[in-house]
Amino acid sequence: MKSWLSVSPDSDFSIYNFPFGVYCIANQEPALASILGNQIIDLAAMNKLGYFKELNISQSVFENKYLNDFIALGKEKTNKVRNTLIEIFSNNNAELALNEKNKSLILKDYSTVTMLMPVKVGNYTDFYSSIQHATNVGTMFRDPKNALLPNYRHIPIGYHGRASSITVSGTDFHRPKGQIKPPDSEQPYMGPTQQLDFELEIAFITGKSTTLGQSITTQQANDYIFGLVLFNDWSARDFQSWEYVPLGPFLAKNFCSSVSPWVVTLEALEQFRVASEKQVPEVLPYLQCPGNNNYDINLEVFIRDEKGTEMQVSSSNFKYMYWSMKQQLAHHTVNGCNIEVGDMYASGTISGSQPHEYGSMLEITWRGTKPLQMPDGSTRKFINDNDTVIMKGYALKDNVRVGFGKVMTKVLPAI
Amino acid sequence: MKSWLSVSPDSDFSIYNFPFGVYCIANQEPALASILGNQIIDLAAMNKLGYFKELNISQSVFENKYLNDFIALGKEKTNKVRNTLIEIFSNNNAELALNEKNKSLILKDYSTVTMLMPVKVGNYTDFYSSIQHATNVGTMFRDPKNALLPNYRHIPIGYHGRASSITVSGTDFHRPKGQIKPPDSEQPYMGPTQQLDFELEIAFITGKSTTLGQSITTQQANDYIFGLVLFNDWSARDFQSWEYVPLGPFLAKNFCSSVSPWVVTLEALEQFRVASEKQVPEVLPYLQCPGNNNYDINLEVFIRDEKGTEMQVSSSNFKYMYWSMKQQLAHHTVNGCNIEVGDMYASGTISGSQPHEYGSMLEITWRGTKPLQMPDGSTRKFINDNDTVIMKGYALKDNVRVGFGKVMTKVLPAI
Repeated sequence: MKSWLSVSPDSDFSIYNFPFGVYCIANQEPALASILGNQIIDLAAMNKLGYFKELNISQSVFENKYLNDFIALGKEKTNKVRNTLIEIFSNNNAELALNEKNKSLILKDYSTVTMLMPVKVGNYTDFYSSIQHATNVGTMFRDPKNALLPNYRHIPIGYHGRASSITVSGTDFHRPKGQIKPPDSEQPYMGPTQQLDFELEIAFITGKSTTLGQSITTQQANDYIFGLVLFNDWSARDFQSWEYVPLGPFLAKNFCSSVSPWVVTLEALEQFRVASEKQVPEVLPYLQCPGNNNYDINLEVFIRDEKGTEMQVSSSNFKYMYWSMKQQLAHHTVNGCNIEVGDMYASGTISGSQPHEYGSMLEITWRGTKPLQMPDGSTRKFINDNDTVIMKGYALKDNVRVGFGKVMTKVLPAI
Repeated sequence: MKSWLSVSPDSDFSIYNFPFGVYCIANQEPALASILGNQIIDLAAMNKLGYFKELNISQSVFENKYLNDFIALGKEKTNKVRNTLIEIFSNNNAELALNEKNKSLILKDYSTVTMLMPVKVGNYTDFYSSIQHATNVGTMFRDPKNALLPNYRHIPIGYHGRASSITVSGTDFHRPKGQIKPPDSEQPYMGPTQQLDFELEIAFITGKSTTLGQSITTQQANDYIFGLVLFNDWSARDFQSWEYVPLGPFLAKNFCSSVSPWVVTLEALEQFRVASEKQVPEVLPYLQCPGNNNYDINLEVFIRDEKGTEMQVSSSNFKYMYWSMKQQLAHHTVNGCNIEVGDMYASGTISGSQPHEYGSMLEITWRGTKPLQMPDGSTRKFINDNDTVIMKGYALKDNVRVGFGKVMTKVLPAI
């Protein structure tokens, strides 16, 4: 399948993708968009021009600063919008291709727009579903022989995070301050974190709500998952080790999380499903879920230093998840916890078994004992001021590429 | 100060209170309200009749299903609304008192209305700020000699909770199901919790937002606190002990939390401020906060069994908090975490030093080792199906009473 619009073969935004996002230009109001190659597709303009007229969607859904109302239309409608886009932009359809006036209203060069936070996040949960990451952390902080805690292979461990501080790619933040207790001191002090870290994650967004008391089975889960984004779960390791017992991470995480602007639909990722690792011991019936429930999505992390020199520091894959999204959602709701449209559920740091596949500086430098050598000769144990962390993700199979673009965040010095 | 409206001296809703809430009657649209004695005051009707005309507040703020837009007007305006109510209802003001038509539009009997969830909660945080509760839990589960963890006296420990499942008083819920690993078993099973517990808490609601990177000092904190509600942080102790290491409580808490419908303003509670316990060791400068920062608010918990027999099981006080709300907010934002209007921050279980002041069944029955004797001869280690848990709270000083009413929730059998 090809488009009449020119799309580079290495573009994440091929005709097989059509993710959803929110954009604005200069002083104009935000609007919903999709993207093909390097052209933004203004969905509000398309709806106004009647391209989705059979779907009967209110214009206010598209002239909106968040995707939530669009997502709440339900998969039947949103998939029809995506399928309409595939149809309109495929090279056997000349209608829009030959309509210069409509093209000028609908298409904008990606380089001229600003992407906004795609959804208003009501509730945010972070899982801990990469077994390699949990093993690495357990090995470093506890006992290498008993690195995994007894609950790990029974429960998709998760915890609640802060929704308000989830920001879109391009939103810089200041190095956070908080309490640090050095190992050789009895007393904590308050100051900028000395151990600022990224965590390479993917988050899914729910597209359908439940009522309190209702549970979602693993079989039903995909109906509730609208799409996925890249997620950088920024972490301050020194805050974390001092604060996290007994109730979990708090200030170590809630100062900023960064997401990519395009929500890639589950449907666009369908052809990249792969088998999960066999779970041993067998999980409880409510978590069982035969079939290919993981997704083969390549993930990359780069650090760009103050001078603009970039170095890749990790190369992982979403297929390394021990617990699938279906299992996460079934577990999250087995007690009747209600979910809402626009909720975000991050995977936890996604690490592979090889050191170059580790998804955080904590693991890559092994708690700072193996500093990274940067191209300019400097070293990194953690992330420096004015470093930019860039995460990319894409699936590729049989020459079909479906990607996320990137999430990119610069760390400014502490205020 | 007295009102021309008859108010019982033991009413929580005296002329010194005027809390804010959201109500509806039968099939009518919800509206903002206050309350005096047993009469609901419809604020939408009052605004329409011009009682707040100098404040120039859009009618849609009052004809609303949540308080958020009202709170977002800022304390200057919302305090003026409250002061206008005090003025209009005081017995030296005859205007409304003599206007039967307006009275019939504004006043409704409390027994005829349904109270709704007062705010749309964007983000919810639960603290752990009662030192007696933390000591009790540490004594039971760890070491009585080292009951408090090393961070406790340095950090107002908190963690993020689930906003979607916070419900208003009167919302029953089904006993949640989840994973339980009995101490004598290697394997967990999935079933209804056997250790359903309440936690007696108070939550504050923020009325002003900050931007990412901004911190709130202890001196500024009160400007950001709109008001308080009673909060029952329902907990499943068996889920909790199995799941909570290393990232904190998750399914043990997120199935339901219950709040009282009336938001009592910080201003109404001003005269009940009392000194806090001296903090030893001295806290870090960003947490220091001289003056009377605790509030003398009596708190009571009752269990009503299936047959309607009620028994008081706890009698505590909000003044027992080790960490004040000002300190909680200063800590929460010291790293730049942004807060929003309508966010909720619960205190953590509020226990006093005496067993009858403990704020959870876990502590009252000391992990089930000292079951409660109920009036009908039955016993309780935790909460049974069809039990109703009722929490009440009120401040009383020099014959001035300002109270919260109650939060009341019935536990239905598991689905």
